[in-house]
Amino acid sequence: MLQIALLGFGVVGSGTAEVLTENQKQIAAYCGDEVNVKYILDLREFPEHPLGDRVVHDIKVILDDPEVVLVAEMMGGAHPAYDFTRAALEAGKSVVTSNKEVVATFGAELLELAREKGVSYLFEASVGGGIPIIRPMQTDLASNEILSVSGILNGTTNFILTKMKNEGAEFSDVLREAQKKGYAEANPSADVDGLDAARKIVILAALAFGKLLNPNEISTTGITGITKDHTAVADKLGCAVKLIGHTEKIDGKVLALVSPYLVSGSNPICHVDDVYNGILVDANMLGRALFYGAGAGKLPTASAVVADIIDVLSHRFTERKLPVWVPAKADEIAAVEDYACRRCYLIEGCSRCAEKAKAALGTDTVVTLEGGRFAVVSKEMTEREATEAIASTGLTPIFCLPVLD
Amino acid sequence: MLQIALLGFGVVGSGTAEVLTENQKQIAAYCGDEVNVKYILDLREFPEHPLGDRVVHDIKVILDDPEVVLVAEMMGGAHPAYDFTRAALEAGKSVVTSNKEVVATFGAELLELAREKGVSYLFEASVGGGIPIIRPMQTDLASNEILSVSGILNGTTNFILTKMKNEGAEFSDVLREAQKKGYAEANPSADVDGLDAARKIVILAALAFGKLLNPNEISTTGITGITKDHTAVADKLGCAVKLIGHTEKIDGKVLALVSPYLVSGSNPICHVDDVYNGILVDANMLGRALFYGAGAGKLPTASAVVADIIDVLSHRFTERKLPVWVPAKADEIAAVEDYACRRCYLIEGCSRCAEKAKAALGTDTVVTLEGGRFAVVSKEMTEREATEAIASTGLTPIFCLPVLD
Repeated sequence: MLQIALLGFGVVGSGTAEVLTENQKQIAAYCGDEVNVKYILDLREFPEHPLGDRVVHDIKVILDDPEVVLVAEMMGGAHPAYDFTRAALEAGKSVVTSNKEVVATFGAELLELAREKGVSYLFEASVGGGIPIIRPMQTDLASNEILSVSGILNGTTNFILTKMKNEGAEFSDVLREAQKKGYAEANPSADVDGLDAARKIVILAALAFGKLLNPNEISTTGITGITKDHTAVADKLGCAVKLIGHTEKIDGKVLALVSPYLVSGSNPICHVDDVYNGILVDANMLGRALFYGAGAGKLPTASAVVADIIDVLSHRFTERKLPVWVPAKADEIAAVEDYACRRCYLIEGCSRCAEKAKAALGTDTVVTLEGGRFAVVSKEMTEREATEAIASTGLTPIFCLPVLD
Repeated sequence: MLQIALLGFGVVGSGTAEVLTENQKQIAAYCGDEVNVKYILDLREFPEHPLGDRVVHDIKVILDDPEVVLVAEMMGGAHPAYDFTRAALEAGKSVVTSNKEVVATFGAELLELAREKGVSYLFEASVGGGIPIIRPMQTDLASNEILSVSGILNGTTNFILTKMKNEGAEFSDVLREAQKKGYAEANPSADVDGLDAARKIVILAALAFGKLLNPNEISTTGITGITKDHTAVADKLGCAVKLIGHTEKIDGKVLALVSPYLVSGSNPICHVDDVYNGILVDANMLGRALFYGAGAGKLPTASAVVADIIDVLSHRFTERKLPVWVPAKADEIAAVEDYACRRCYLIEGCSRCAEKAKAALGTDTVVTLEGGRFAVVSKEMTEREATEAIASTGLTPIFCLPVLD
């Protein structure tokens, strides 16, 4: 019998218990032994739950029990989740987690500590919910150099943007509906302002390039400023507005940002709708691969937590190679001004203005919109070049969105 | 230095050499040692190639060299690839392969032999080219029971069907163009008649359900009968015609088939176009996940071969759990007549005929087409039920396609 403990018995924690129970036999076959939840750490009691008798309120009970070989942390929030994770690793227990905040903030030191202690620290559930992405990047893509990762990493904002596109609705109306349906929280800031996506793209950037950026310091724009104008322009150009986390290397430095993008219809991410997530990896040998699925939700996220549990327990007699992450130094981080891509500007003005904008932006791609406005898509240029080019025309754009081709 | 041998130096074989050279440092870091191609088995000589001096013509040289720990088989065809694979496993060498014919036909016995000998037999490149699918199904989805797998598994036919959709062209014209561009072979039968997809869905079915079916015996329909009528009906219904390999369990028995389907616009597979492949896995906890990317091609396929090489070499001190496949017995195979799904019929007839068809098929979904024809989509029913229902109307369908929702 393999003894494990769950930290946090909320949505993901109780889902993890459900997956372990539901697919028990298969999981035991993979692990070579039965898996038993010996403890559940939570502030609450769950007298009605079949596992209610496993609930404890003191982490020390778990840390001090040598039978417990693995701890699944699903508490959310930085503290005490981080502190409990450190303590568990220190005690020689492997840790798996769905906690993106802890991984994005403390991942480098926690991986280092796990390595020192000869245990595992896995976090498949921290990005893309149940979608396999962390493990494939470390195994299937090990033969590749990663060139870039671009993803729809937040289901709430994708639900809102999809509704806005399909119904021509405004942001605030759709947000209210999403809150009613439970797809958005009462305080939706972490989702709509992009912080949730920022944490996830920081994790993916660290996997791709080995450098961990501070999720609070990368360029992050949410979707609160997205209007019917954006969706109308996207529609005219055969694109969709999506909140994208993107990372790539620029001259050896790591760029990571979160922004609403116009995603081209030819990019498979364009068709990732509703609460689904989609992560596009561009690799030097494979080319582009998309990983798509349920980016959140009780059972999908728990499915990824349990995949990590199986991975740890079935390889318990093996030394594991954990990725080496190093906190990125200032001179290893690319400035967003050096980020080159095509950009779409919505501008009010006459056809002569449109000609001026086209010339400055080196492009022929322009569409006209009602209200005497036009949208022009620049050639690929850095943000700095694009800003200068637009300034040189004397025109004042209503908005500017990067384009993902 | 880790010594390996390549069997076959065609497209995938030379691509594998290229990936190993191009990403050498990274691959060495994963494996904990440098990887060296000691031998290349091929009938030809490659005097101009930097690895030309590694070419041998006798498999015995490789089998008898105890330094060679791994053999990558990329010869294609059943023989002698199967025989060389057996001999390499017998000699205690791990084998990785891109050869879907060998895996689909002899996978059960080769996995068994590898297990006996304590070595590995991996085949990520045999399905979906470079797309990570085999390994994710065995690791990330280990926490799930697989309910079904549906995939666009052949790039050539997807290229043809995409062209037919976008240009309203006929099959034979597009095939000729694909042959000119090198996307289709001079003898395109294995692709357009569905055998290539049949081999791949048989492999995915074995991974999902542990039973290996005979790829020559599953219900296989290719795309040679697809006409403008099919694409017109698909368009009217917001669908696309795709050649799909599908597997699921029906009352504990394994169903696997290959057929052109109408794929609904809401299914992410609908948007997998051109030579790309997409594989949709439905799992009991995760729900639906899509794996998308380059399903063929030199470097993408080689990328998967090298991922397997890294997997074997980096775990060379570990006992590996290989999947257990058993050849499916006759009573473990589901009859295609018991396969329940929605089906679309194109029928010539008046509005009274349409009413009759709707009533018999338990549906309100009907669209009219030029030429006094209509397309009706049944409710979900087995093939047997659907055939009886249509027969009861006395109408003769021009075609029938299953629908993937």
